[in-house]
Amino acid sequence: MILTDHAALATQLQAYILEHIPLARAMELRVARHEGAELELAAPLAPNINDKGCAFGGSMASLMTLAGWGLVELALRARGIECDIYVGDSTVRYREPLFGELRAIARFAAADALEVFLKTLAARGRARIQVVCTIAGETQDAATLEAAFVAKTC
Amino acid sequence: MILTDHAALATQLQAYILEHIPLARAMELRVARHEGAELELAAPLAPNINDKGCAFGGSMASLMTLAGWGLVELALRARGIECDIYVGDSTVRYREPLFGELRAIARFAAADALEVFLKTLAARGRARIQVVCTIAGETQDAATLEAAFVAKTC
Repeated sequence: MILTDHAALATQLQAYILEHIPLARAMELRVARHEGAELELAAPLAPNINDKGCAFGGSMASLMTLAGWGLVELALRARGIECDIYVGDSTVRYREPLFGELRAIARFAAADALEVFLKTLAARGRARIQVVCTIAGETQDAATLEAAFVAKTC
Repeated sequence: MILTDHAALATQLQAYILEHIPLARAMELRVARHEGAELELAAPLAPNINDKGCAFGGSMASLMTLAGWGLVELALRARGIECDIYVGDSTVRYREPLFGELRAIARFAAADALEVFLKTLAARGRARIQVVCTIAGETQDAATLEAAFVAKTC
């Protein structure tokens, strides 16, 4: 069974992240939107600012990493699968300075990625999935992340 | 003239980072060591922990990014050069979970990288330099970063 109450799952995820990851509390992270195939996390600029008055690269990388991790976490929770999910290799591109709220949108990198991931996880107790994430800027993406996440059955 | 009082520069850098980057304060970052060609930043585990009891990937990425940025910043400050320095493209590899203090060591990627960077910056008012950074784990590096930093004369 797939639990499709995305709003309830998103609320639970936000509470879980804020309880267990102190840096997410410091960032004032919130789950802005969840639609199964996409997860959007947001954070205000003030706690994530740098010395040049724009978003700190580490905050953007952290928010995008959490969005990717959260997307995988929610896909598994919706199916009642308990796993530890770890971030693997990541590439972050910083394209332009961001002088407003940080909004990171994570998606699976391929249309069939989730299906393959779930089958592998069921068969082997361990699987890897590729996620892409973007933070919108004024004229283009302010930053992008491509990352692998590894799930292991608890 | 190159200012070689690395300890004084390191103290100034720590104060600057903690004043201007709130997330670095939340991470309880400190400058552990600076020797011109290497910069080591440290942060305790507690404020940087994740839901699995080990170091949060975003904290490791942030600490390594700041170590790389700080290494470039200090090389320029030692020479009295005022610049804005931005992080460019980065690759982070997470190799093993880290259950202790985070210690990130940044170095220039090539022996002649700084010399080329300074010459280009003097000629064009803008230059790029490649930095590598590692966080030691128990049996291998817990995480590594390869990143480009871009400096622009103010």
